[in-house]
Amino acid sequence: MPVLVMKFGGTSVANLDRIRRAAKRVGVEVAKGYDVIVIVSAMSGKTNELVGWVGETSPMYDAREYDAVVSSGENVTAGLMALTLQEMDIPARSWQGWQVPLKTNSAHGAARIEEIPPENIMAKFGEGMKVAVVAGFQGISPEGRITTLGRGGSDTTAVAFAAAFDAERCDIYTDVDGVYTTDPRICQKARKLDRIAFEEMLELASLGAKVLQTRSVELAMRYNVKLRVLSSFEEQSDTAGTLICAEEDIMESNVVNGIAASREEAKMTLVTIADEPGIAASIFGPLSDAGVNVDMIIQNISEEGVTDMTFSCPIDQVKRAEKALGEARDAGKLTFEELAIDTEVCKVSAVGIGMRSQSGVAAKMFKVLSDEGINIKVIATSEIKISVLIERKYMELAVQALHDAFELEKA
Amino acid sequence: MPVLVMKFGGTSVANLDRIRRAAKRVGVEVAKGYDVIVIVSAMSGKTNELVGWVGETSPMYDAREYDAVVSSGENVTAGLMALTLQEMDIPARSWQGWQVPLKTNSAHGAARIEEIPPENIMAKFGEGMKVAVVAGFQGISPEGRITTLGRGGSDTTAVAFAAAFDAERCDIYTDVDGVYTTDPRICQKARKLDRIAFEEMLELASLGAKVLQTRSVELAMRYNVKLRVLSSFEEQSDTAGTLICAEEDIMESNVVNGIAASREEAKMTLVTIADEPGIAASIFGPLSDAGVNVDMIIQNISEEGVTDMTFSCPIDQVKRAEKALGEARDAGKLTFEELAIDTEVCKVSAVGIGMRSQSGVAAKMFKVLSDEGINIKVIATSEIKISVLIERKYMELAVQALHDAFELEKA
Repeated sequence: MPVLVMKFGGTSVANLDRIRRAAKRVGVEVAKGYDVIVIVSAMSGKTNELVGWVGETSPMYDAREYDAVVSSGENVTAGLMALTLQEMDIPARSWQGWQVPLKTNSAHGAARIEEIPPENIMAKFGEGMKVAVVAGFQGISPEGRITTLGRGGSDTTAVAFAAAFDAERCDIYTDVDGVYTTDPRICQKARKLDRIAFEEMLELASLGAKVLQTRSVELAMRYNVKLRVLSSFEEQSDTAGTLICAEEDIMESNVVNGIAASREEAKMTLVTIADEPGIAASIFGPLSDAGVNVDMIIQNISEEGVTDMTFSCPIDQVKRAEKALGEARDAGKLTFEELAIDTEVCKVSAVGIGMRSQSGVAAKMFKVLSDEGINIKVIATSEIKISVLIERKYMELAVQALHDAFELEKA
Repeated sequence: MPVLVMKFGGTSVANLDRIRRAAKRVGVEVAKGYDVIVIVSAMSGKTNELVGWVGETSPMYDAREYDAVVSSGENVTAGLMALTLQEMDIPARSWQGWQVPLKTNSAHGAARIEEIPPENIMAKFGEGMKVAVVAGFQGISPEGRITTLGRGGSDTTAVAFAAAFDAERCDIYTDVDGVYTTDPRICQKARKLDRIAFEEMLELASLGAKVLQTRSVELAMRYNVKLRVLSSFEEQSDTAGTLICAEEDIMESNVVNGIAASREEAKMTLVTIADEPGIAASIFGPLSDAGVNVDMIIQNISEEGVTDMTFSCPIDQVKRAEKALGEARDAGKLTFEELAIDTEVCKVSAVGIGMRSQSGVAAKMFKVLSDEGINIKVIATSEIKISVLIERKYMELAVQALHDAFELEKA
């Protein structure tokens, strides 16, 4: 039998009614002849409750105990889902991470999957079991302790199972009905994409389109797992949702396929630094050591041996960045006149694999923004993406103008 | 290092504050030099919530999935307790049943413990760990599935660990401060016992003194585990609570040590049955098959080849008993004129190992009740117990009169 992986997130299994609804979807796929592996999250809110208790008990907690506690929510859902399927006369059983076993390294709280031996579950499929319900987000370390994969780990679990079982597809059921050309709350003309390439999805995921965990998309790309995102709250069909797949599986694509926007950005400028070899390392070394995720970087033209350095980072890392740079200065490793911080910025990006073969996208983007009177503060580009940092108040305007200009409302 | 087992029930770990309070008690024992095994229940209410979800999902549930779901509450408490101890600088870690492993048979929902290999935990004690926090109530079956031990299973877990680790004592922390001569809500003069013999505790436990699970007391008696019941809500001392121990460890004992009372009784009388060999089997066979726990039995004096048979059973099994006897009659396996049911009864019992060597206890009990004008409906005796079935409205009166007559308020 071909294997299908179906993953249901927290809102899709938030209560017994929703679990029943999800089970019906599983039933539809079983009826088509699939052996189904269902990956479940904890009921929505449960994991946060457990995380809260751990934090309150022990601010600097032992991650091994954190994992033992927070993994319990998924176990509850897995058992309830198996029972619900059995009530529908579908042979099903639950599996906790250690029972599969889903083997991880020992990086508690953010463990990496090392191996998923398919033998145990395949043996049960061979005996007539139709659905293996697996508690997502968890595994077992070489020491026999429970590990968790970090936030969004259930998506990663699902993709890893799809790879290990050579599944036909991995369907991620969530509370949105697919991946959009942009955030529909910002731009009414946003259109659901039928297909999107892994690379594009990766750029969109890391740029703030919160549909899928970046890590799960990376894994899907590496193992070429066809990934479908669809809503558990709408009627199912074979064309529902968005298929995330290899570039080769997409016949025709727009030059730009999506506009991503992120509010959570800050811009920092080190004013008057020496323009000499090693200066970049002396700035970004300490930032990296402090765990600051520096995103965009620009260096001004040098005048009389001094220059300015501007970079962006997530807004909640500003304090950490400030501290790291201050300490570097105090230690005599870095000199600058001033650290200018601008927390009133946002990042808007155009993404599309078509950019690889088509030029002029950047020029068009800059012109569109200029026509709207929006000043660009920082620019960064990759093979399939152009990002700009602009004033936050222009975010909606920029997204809408770019969506129009690149005609994203058209398929 | 000597090993001490400490068990905390649901109300003793109901929230983070109470877990901290329990952890402090553990700290006191660690400071005395013990290696401590802590057995924890789920936070109070959690298991009921999970059981409710399972029942709602699947009325005739798969007990394997039931176990996978309801065992999760203990895992949460175990992790939180380990973290709390770590915050107090006490080296601790949590263990789930399958990690120990606590091996059981495959009787899901009411599994029997088969083996607790002490090697894993002892190895950690050897490495400097001071406290092993074990999730109670759960184990692992030969098939590698999670099992639960049935209600009150955490007491049984604690005693089994004390036996497997040859612990000096097993302390059961609960919401009462010990075992009383009778229910203090019924009789104000009720006195806490410092010591009680296993056999007496067994009679009291099965007679309605809900302090400890019968099964855990049986296990403690078989392995001669010293069991102490004490409150987690009062200050600790070495003489706190009640020690349940072998008869030899009790220097001096009253003839009667406790008066137990149970409201949940019913009396059933089969009127006019044939007084012939095999008649008892034809009555109690079907009742046993139907899962009715028959307690006391009396057969009237036979007249003209017919007699009456009276028995008692828990009040919630009356319907089941009625059905079983009706079906036996319909199948021609049993004849009776009438089934008289009295649900307005209660059982009052006097318990004491001293009865073995001292006669006249029954006579005294009957006289006390007679002096109060209380009619005895059924009598049953064992070596260390005399039970009577009386009208329920006399329960308080009977308990108080017996408590006075046997001078139980005196140590």
